[in-house]
Amino acid sequence: MTGQEVAVEQVRALLFDVFGTVVDWRSGVIRDVTVLAAEHGADIDAAALADRWRAAYRPAMNQVRTGELPWTNLDGLHRRTLDQLLAGTELAGSGLDGLDEAERAWLATCWHRLDPWPDAVAGLERLKERYIIAAFSNGNVALLVNMAKWGGLPWDFVFSAELFRHYKPDPQTYLGAAGLLSLSPAEVMLVAAHNDDLIAADGLGLATAFVPRPGDLGPNHQANQEPARTYSCVAAGFGDLAALLGA
Amino acid sequence: MTGQEVAVEQVRALLFDVFGTVVDWRSGVIRDVTVLAAEHGADIDAAALADRWRAAYRPAMNQVRTGELPWTNLDGLHRRTLDQLLAGTELAGSGLDGLDEAERAWLATCWHRLDPWPDAVAGLERLKERYIIAAFSNGNVALLVNMAKWGGLPWDFVFSAELFRHYKPDPQTYLGAAGLLSLSPAEVMLVAAHNDDLIAADGLGLATAFVPRPGDLGPNHQANQEPARTYSCVAAGFGDLAALLGA
Repeated sequence: MTGQEVAVEQVRALLFDVFGTVVDWRSGVIRDVTVLAAEHGADIDAAALADRWRAAYRPAMNQVRTGELPWTNLDGLHRRTLDQLLAGTELAGSGLDGLDEAERAWLATCWHRLDPWPDAVAGLERLKERYIIAAFSNGNVALLVNMAKWGGLPWDFVFSAELFRHYKPDPQTYLGAAGLLSLSPAEVMLVAAHNDDLIAADGLGLATAFVPRPGDLGPNHQANQEPARTYSCVAAGFGDLAALLGA
Repeated sequence: MTGQEVAVEQVRALLFDVFGTVVDWRSGVIRDVTVLAAEHGADIDAAALADRWRAAYRPAMNQVRTGELPWTNLDGLHRRTLDQLLAGTELAGSGLDGLDEAERAWLATCWHRLDPWPDAVAGLERLKERYIIAAFSNGNVALLVNMAKWGGLPWDFVFSAELFRHYKPDPQTYLGAAGLLSLSPAEVMLVAAHNDDLIAADGLGLATAFVPRPGDLGPNHQANQEPARTYSCVAAGFGDLAALLGA
């Protein structure tokens, strides 16, 4: 059984991918990089640095998924990849290469301070009236809890990869979340802006909702603007999703 | 170091014991037992049954803690102890001994449908403005999430024993919660109506707040009405706690 055959009427809980789906990671990272660059008089391309940092996330995470690295939470991976970027030749002499420990720690946790997309909070509040709504993210618990307070995200629960010591798309995360809710996979829907996440959930029998986020990867990237296959539903935003789900 | 020496100014997150501290378990259980007794014309003492059921919780949990039983979440333990009570001689012929599967499942999950003490939600909302507020309970995730929706408990996070596969007062629960929040034990305060829970937290370096709940165990029990030792603070309710903590 695949998710597209799951009757939406069965769904009791919505799991939300967070980075890119609920929050605009790129603007938030650019904002905090820009703050530090200004303080240090560093003439750098903050957007390019944000994109390079984000690009380092998947390889680092895969080192954990394959066992090459021991379990490391996302704050740990972000700090590791940030330190690698700051030590690289591209930033040598920029002024950013001399950040002190407090500045590095602050920048490494800029992922806790990301703003929601404009429709996100109102849509979540509406969906929460009818469904259990939960974050479902590779972010660690502290990151996701701090982000929810920062942006007013009204989660009923926060499923972090850290709880399972497995990163998405490992099946332990999707099935682990359903299990902790005492629900079957078909009673759970993944809401995400990324086809790979949705395809993994679908393969495990979850319902799926694709919500494309055109600004996710910046103006020059077109990935994930179209559904790669059929999902339980496709929505233009969280308000549209609430309408489609009768919430 | 013990919690009484922890400076309250350091505290960033409040962990709340739930059964008895946040919600009135006894009234809720009596209410749902009474509903089923009426439907079956059973002439039973609902309060006595609630108290017997609650009394069976600690021995069952300790079977898990000692390894006598494999990991079983609280819904599982509640169902097990309910079935034992319903099969016992005291309820034989009462009408309650013939509950069908759907009725047993509904009654076993009455712990999801417990009402907060009258001051709880307003106090939590106030404390949430200044602190991370989290459930910290031996209840399983589904139970605690459903209870939060039932009663409007505005948790930032839900720490369930199920996440650690250890029940309180095992240290893995207190230290595990602090670790997932990326906080030191001294930056975390346990709020509870029960001395044993607070003493365990204090021994691990957490701050402690004792909030006695006179109705917790019913009119004939006086346990936990007084602090057994010195805590970081003692409050008459969650509004009082918010005032003491400057929230």
